[in-house]
Amino acid sequence: MTARQTALTVAVIGVGMVGGSVAAALKAGGRCAEVIGFSPEPDGSRALELGLIDRLASSVADAVAGADRIVLAAPIPAMPQVLRELRPVLRPDALITDCASAKSSVIAAADRELGDAFDRFLPGHPIAGSERNGPDAARAELFRDRRWLFCPARPVQTQWCESWREVLQVTGARFSEIDPALHDRVFAEVSHWPHAVAFVMGAAIARGELAEEAIRYAGAGLRDTSRIAASPADLWSGILLDNAGPVLESAERFRAELDRLIDALARRDRGALTDILDTASRWRRRID
Amino acid sequence: MTARQTALTVAVIGVGMVGGSVAAALKAGGRCAEVIGFSPEPDGSRALELGLIDRLASSVADAVAGADRIVLAAPIPAMPQVLRELRPVLRPDALITDCASAKSSVIAAADRELGDAFDRFLPGHPIAGSERNGPDAARAELFRDRRWLFCPARPVQTQWCESWREVLQVTGARFSEIDPALHDRVFAEVSHWPHAVAFVMGAAIARGELAEEAIRYAGAGLRDTSRIAASPADLWSGILLDNAGPVLESAERFRAELDRLIDALARRDRGALTDILDTASRWRRRID
Repeated sequence: MTARQTALTVAVIGVGMVGGSVAAALKAGGRCAEVIGFSPEPDGSRALELGLIDRLASSVADAVAGADRIVLAAPIPAMPQVLRELRPVLRPDALITDCASAKSSVIAAADRELGDAFDRFLPGHPIAGSERNGPDAARAELFRDRRWLFCPARPVQTQWCESWREVLQVTGARFSEIDPALHDRVFAEVSHWPHAVAFVMGAAIARGELAEEAIRYAGAGLRDTSRIAASPADLWSGILLDNAGPVLESAERFRAELDRLIDALARRDRGALTDILDTASRWRRRID
Repeated sequence: MTARQTALTVAVIGVGMVGGSVAAALKAGGRCAEVIGFSPEPDGSRALELGLIDRLASSVADAVAGADRIVLAAPIPAMPQVLRELRPVLRPDALITDCASAKSSVIAAADRELGDAFDRFLPGHPIAGSERNGPDAARAELFRDRRWLFCPARPVQTQWCESWREVLQVTGARFSEIDPALHDRVFAEVSHWPHAVAFVMGAAIARGELAEEAIRYAGAGLRDTSRIAASPADLWSGILLDNAGPVLESAERFRAELDRLIDALARRDRGALTDILDTASRWRRRID
């Protein structure tokens, strides 16, 4: 009886790789009354078929109506519409979080669409880089030992961190908090811009006359540096546009460094060239 | 007796990761009379200690004097000096190959330094990308199932391909031939320029005000795209300068694409942005 009273009904909106993995972890954790999912077809049916969710809802409103907790894992451009649809049916005690990899615009949309319920929204970002997507790429272990960041935009939202941590601890993630504006600058630098660079490299090779030879002779270096260029174009143009301000700041720093390297190479200036390479190499070795 | 007559003495000049791995594979293959190595200290002693070579020579000339086959795996900037030192002691029937990742300048140096013996030089390039280096990174299996390219610069050099293939088949590599000028353009595109991009990305982050946060929050995307930026700065400034012409051509194509992406992002032009990402994504998916 006590167990049933505390068991939560969780709605996951967007059951692709990220949302599907959250749902699968919650299901595997066995402490939720029901894990309800919604995605436009065919992802919704596929998530149900794969057993990532207990029930497939027919709409955002249907998924959210009875939910204690709501996890938004829809693509960033779909977020305003999702927020509009869930607002009228939201239970007065329901808590909401999201998984978007850029926070400022999602926070602005939630502030605009949720009214008073914005206080019960805790912006979040579980970090699990992968060039894959869709329910077939989902797995309960995706977030194990990965960072899961909470980015409260108002002091009142901070109170939900502990509560979400309890629910989401079955994912095995390591939770911490970060200011949303700093989050967006840091992730422009460590994720969004590196994706853009990989896309630029891939597009430049693809449009060059050596595109076929490059596929034939691609070694570990090109494979690694360009791996994330295989990511879905739609998803990533959404992320880059959504966080365009900080991404363009990272872009300007990158272009300045690029011009320095090209200039050093054109002048055959070994000292200047080695200085750039050495700065990069010393920094990169600190990551491992 | 027959076995001893056909067993070859091989000298490997430069017993770091690449040369050390070639030596180790030849030793493990058990078909050489002796695998002699030379590197400036401390690499030479370390290679002997690790058992990569049978004997450590005291100089290039000492290593080469009795050798039937000579594998040059010294860093590119050291090649002209190595070629000068080996010329006077070279046996009249000795065959030479090299492992440099850019061919034009090594070929020019060999043509200048070797005299008639240039006909017995077969330019080569075993492909085994790694951000590591030195004898401790060497292993007999490094080239298994990797490409090993021969790049004859003159028709007369082509005759040695089969003979080197026989000696080097113990590495497990897949051998093929490619024109040296095409080789240098292809490897600028698939290896040298991607390294430069990774170095630029690393240096831009390292010099930015988020360098520490970037280390803390680095995910799989940044780790993969920047992994080769941990490569030795000296080695890579040598390679980039050595193949500067083709690398600068790749750089110009990359910079044009970069400007297109930054422009699309600045104008918030989703169509133009998605087009770049989609071109890259479709190309990249063909690699796997």
